[in-house]
Amino acid sequence: MKEELRFFLKDTIRRSVDFTRTAQNLGYPPPPLEKPLPEGATILPLPLPEAWPEMSGLSLFAAIARRRSHRSFRDAPLSLAELSFLLWAVQGMREVRDEIRGYRTVPSAGCRHPFETYLAVFDVERLARGLYRYLPLEQGLVWLASPDNLEQRTVEAASGQAFVGKGALTFLWTALPERTEWRYGEASVKVIALDAGHVCQNLYLACEAVGAGTCAIAAYDQEAADRLVGVDGTDEFVVYMASVGKVDPPDYP
Amino acid sequence: MKEELRFFLKDTIRRSVDFTRTAQNLGYPPPPLEKPLPEGATILPLPLPEAWPEMSGLSLFAAIARRRSHRSFRDAPLSLAELSFLLWAVQGMREVRDEIRGYRTVPSAGCRHPFETYLAVFDVERLARGLYRYLPLEQGLVWLASPDNLEQRTVEAASGQAFVGKGALTFLWTALPERTEWRYGEASVKVIALDAGHVCQNLYLACEAVGAGTCAIAAYDQEAADRLVGVDGTDEFVVYMASVGKVDPPDYP
Repeated sequence: MKEELRFFLKDTIRRSVDFTRTAQNLGYPPPPLEKPLPEGATILPLPLPEAWPEMSGLSLFAAIARRRSHRSFRDAPLSLAELSFLLWAVQGMREVRDEIRGYRTVPSAGCRHPFETYLAVFDVERLARGLYRYLPLEQGLVWLASPDNLEQRTVEAASGQAFVGKGALTFLWTALPERTEWRYGEASVKVIALDAGHVCQNLYLACEAVGAGTCAIAAYDQEAADRLVGVDGTDEFVVYMASVGKVDPPDYP
Repeated sequence: MKEELRFFLKDTIRRSVDFTRTAQNLGYPPPPLEKPLPEGATILPLPLPEAWPEMSGLSLFAAIARRRSHRSFRDAPLSLAELSFLLWAVQGMREVRDEIRGYRTVPSAGCRHPFETYLAVFDVERLARGLYRYLPLEQGLVWLASPDNLEQRTVEAASGQAFVGKGALTFLWTALPERTEWRYGEASVKVIALDAGHVCQNLYLACEAVGAGTCAIAAYDQEAADRLVGVDGTDEFVVYMASVGKVDPPDYP
């Protein structure tokens, strides 16, 4: 049993994949770089990098040295510029070369970037409480819903971890595995998980630059999390979460 | 088939784990924070953070904005201080609280940190060509071997990707899954892969601070990679690799 599970951490599976039969090599078009907008939805633009001068002060060295997991937060909002910076850090587009190659702020196996980023927003300035999805191509958000019991449902999605309903917002990343399977077939599972780790590490570091803290959440209720963000649990499902809120400044410079 | 594979990206498995029967809850001692030294081995100390002033200049913002994958490198060595900084960024110890809690520069599910970091060193100042393992507790290295055909064997470990033998060195991370299984049982596989992603993202960013570049390698020859670093392929095996070398300065500040 143990060996069967550990197999998914190895790259042995690649040998059994017939890469001539992947969707890419069979000539199927690639899945879109970004999930299409819901019909009739409007894009809420986010502040662009020109509005982030204060995020440029922290050195990489200090960000790495200070990083730790935070499970308690100050009762204070994030600004929209701070949120924009965090979203750019985790999934922002650096360069869209064509319909296959959208280079982002994080690496992804085969440049497949199989994620969408959802936000349960509790306390962000100039943004109504509610569920949103990030639009990397537009550096914007799309509003999805504003359920009354958003905090409670987010805590349920995190299997009851109460701190997840208390920060300024909670990130929920879904995987759309077809984006990676299009290129790598059965050898996609492990690299999607590796890619999700890249994303979350940038969130940890970026939080340090805006006086916030985060805690990654890998223990969650799959069905409740999928229901919260409104995905089918098969072709798109939650893979990782992270709660974000303002924290007290560190004791050291 | 597809659904069976995607299962490993979900957290459904957690429900089937009897956490009262994990090694931790049965009272077994935790695996050590760091793999013990080979008998008779000596520790090569690495330069400490005081020797890294030049690594502190780059902002987190610039590191994230500049990051990209590099597959060609300048014919120039890394300094030992630069290597020390990279190793600290990927797996350095921030604080060792007890035999269970060793906090590092990256997060890990349940603070289990299931990795060892091996280096195939081709061109680092004051360091002989060869295979080494990083010692986070001591901020040092242990020398393992200096095979004549190190570059060729590293390329073979990377399934023939030639650039992997041409940089200054190649990182090979192994997983020791028992460290995570001790706490999470069968729910360990996905979080180990997420954790490996955290580690590699820090390498990408840290490279930007030392004029180097990297490319993550998830497509590798499992057996050749395990043989190269001398691990059994069962209780310890390679999970991720990354080639590192000096690169031309970016065109933008």
